[in-house]
Amino acid sequence: MKKRYLMAPGPVSVAPEVLSRMSEPIIHHRSPQFSAILTKVREDLKYLYQTRNDILIFASSGTGGMEASVTNLLSPGDKAIVVRGGKFGERWAELCEAYGAEPVNIDVEWGQAVDPADVEKALNDHPEARAVFVQAHETSTGVKHPVEALGEIVKKRPGTLLVVDAISALGVYELKTDEWGLDVVVTGSQKSLALPPGLSLVSVSEKAWALCEESRMPKYYFNFLKERKAIARETTAYTPAVSLIIGLGVVLEQIKAVGLEGLFKHHKRLSEGTKAGIRAMGLELFSKSPCEAITVIKAPNGIDGQEVVKILREDYGITIAGGQAQAKGKIFRIAHIGHLSEWDMIIALSAVERALKSLGHPVELGKGVAAALEYFANN
Amino acid sequence: MKKRYLMAPGPVSVAPEVLSRMSEPIIHHRSPQFSAILTKVREDLKYLYQTRNDILIFASSGTGGMEASVTNLLSPGDKAIVVRGGKFGERWAELCEAYGAEPVNIDVEWGQAVDPADVEKALNDHPEARAVFVQAHETSTGVKHPVEALGEIVKKRPGTLLVVDAISALGVYELKTDEWGLDVVVTGSQKSLALPPGLSLVSVSEKAWALCEESRMPKYYFNFLKERKAIARETTAYTPAVSLIIGLGVVLEQIKAVGLEGLFKHHKRLSEGTKAGIRAMGLELFSKSPCEAITVIKAPNGIDGQEVVKILREDYGITIAGGQAQAKGKIFRIAHIGHLSEWDMIIALSAVERALKSLGHPVELGKGVAAALEYFANN
Repeated sequence: MKKRYLMAPGPVSVAPEVLSRMSEPIIHHRSPQFSAILTKVREDLKYLYQTRNDILIFASSGTGGMEASVTNLLSPGDKAIVVRGGKFGERWAELCEAYGAEPVNIDVEWGQAVDPADVEKALNDHPEARAVFVQAHETSTGVKHPVEALGEIVKKRPGTLLVVDAISALGVYELKTDEWGLDVVVTGSQKSLALPPGLSLVSVSEKAWALCEESRMPKYYFNFLKERKAIARETTAYTPAVSLIIGLGVVLEQIKAVGLEGLFKHHKRLSEGTKAGIRAMGLELFSKSPCEAITVIKAPNGIDGQEVVKILREDYGITIAGGQAQAKGKIFRIAHIGHLSEWDMIIALSAVERALKSLGHPVELGKGVAAALEYFANN
Repeated sequence: MKKRYLMAPGPVSVAPEVLSRMSEPIIHHRSPQFSAILTKVREDLKYLYQTRNDILIFASSGTGGMEASVTNLLSPGDKAIVVRGGKFGERWAELCEAYGAEPVNIDVEWGQAVDPADVEKALNDHPEARAVFVQAHETSTGVKHPVEALGEIVKKRPGTLLVVDAISALGVYELKTDEWGLDVVVTGSQKSLALPPGLSLVSVSEKAWALCEESRMPKYYFNFLKERKAIARETTAYTPAVSLIIGLGVVLEQIKAVGLEGLFKHHKRLSEGTKAGIRAMGLELFSKSPCEAITVIKAPNGIDGQEVVKILREDYGITIAGGQAQAKGKIFRIAHIGHLSEWDMIIALSAVERALKSLGHPVELGKGVAAALEYFANN
């Protein structure tokens, strides 16, 4: 009977009205009724993506969309520039290697954003590189990479694509797919779209479609060309996750109602209020290029970040996230995505204050909360 | 406001109590709370599968599980025997080709089951074949293939695996994974498990694990070995479809309550009652080896099967399925899987009678229904 709160960067809290629509009787995926929903969802996704490109929908987690972006664009032996500054950057490199492409890794210190000049240099050194793979927001570190600047660089190269993992970025802050030249943009259902996990979405530019035709990597379930053909028939190549797509339709209606500007402002408010609270507690942000999707906090000296996460979960019923891989124990992460309000951020800050105090860290209870309240009152 | 009925072979009708549980607040996929659910689901799946093998859970449609079974067991250049007697048999061959394996196809006339002697002959001709790929039930034709007999044949060959697509078979009728020597068995959430689409499940035998270690096909998202390691950590390699897995937990509890025997009897009743009704209407079954999952009916001379499907859907609010590929227009299919009762079968038969009559086929209204009622009353 304990009341629980979910403030992790995916899966996230889903709005009750969305859950309720998803729990209506299932409809057949090849019915005109579902085709109409699917086609409207695809149109509304273009608004969210700020694109005129086709958007493909796969039944998979976000990693499936990332895999698809490698196997449909590259051929074995191809070189690709990979920005590697966290767990998900590493995933791009692993995907390239798994399918016989050759990643040229730009290793960025965890917590730092990539310098666009380093990407330009890598492209000059390897002009044959077929793609640049990057995260818009590297969820493991809370870092925003400068994808607009990368777009400027890659745009000029007709044989190279910019492929962006925007799984925890799209819908959180401004990402202009067409204007910035983001050729392929991947997202997932369980982040800012505030749905359960199980859908990945991929936008594909005309430039990318041309290279797609030449790809010789093996693929079957994740097949861009087959899915593009299915769009014309108002369907998908394989059985889609119908209930998630119906939920997506509801969420996209809500997004259109508040507008992208309203959506971005909402995430910015939650993020800045939380970050103000964290700073007022005397804590430090881990990311040098912080993102509106999450606040990543350095665990203070002598405190294990995993312990903070554990106390919140076990004692207070609040799920935030710890660090992954090399960042494990060193950080903890409060998400601003999902069905959340500023009052949830007050809960998170209150809980962090109490947890740190209980771990023996000197904290003045209420100080971070006060700073956040101040921010929310004035913004 | 029209009342709608779903009697297609997937997606299927989901029970309201399952939809309701799936619409509870989302929980985090790395929480102890979700790990406990996942671990229990994996145990309960062993009961359904009649196996002690590991069962892997992927966020994808069934085709993803089929792809995984090809890419994790074979290497490029490997030969595999493929039973090809319908759309899904063809899919096994396409998957092999997509990843550079060499399918040795046994082409079976649509509507017929494979002769085990033909598989044995193919294995004698190609003893190096690494796997036999087959459907337990070929959904496109309503044919049950004799997987128990195939198990006897393949068991004796240490270097060859029996890989069974049981997407529309598992939970419908007796399939003894361990006893029959079914090395890899794939199923999906949107068939007899009566859940929305979005999960594929794959059981893997010790014999299959050994060959898995040698596989050199590229893979990443669908990776058996990575998922096996995740089982020990009570998690999955990538973000799972949490709400579907929670729904699966509810369904498996229900299945344990009625028992496998009860579950199989239920499908048999719906199937036999429906088939009795169809025969009483003077119609013919398409499948020479009919399955309890669906009744596949030959469209009578001069009647387009697609028209029958269309009238049911548009005029009566009832979704059944038509034929696919070469069977399009020649057949229509009434499913017995999902949250259905014998009264739904009465609705389907009533609707088919009316539709055929409206298309000018001589039908005595109520004759098929009467035969079905007779069957249900006496069985």
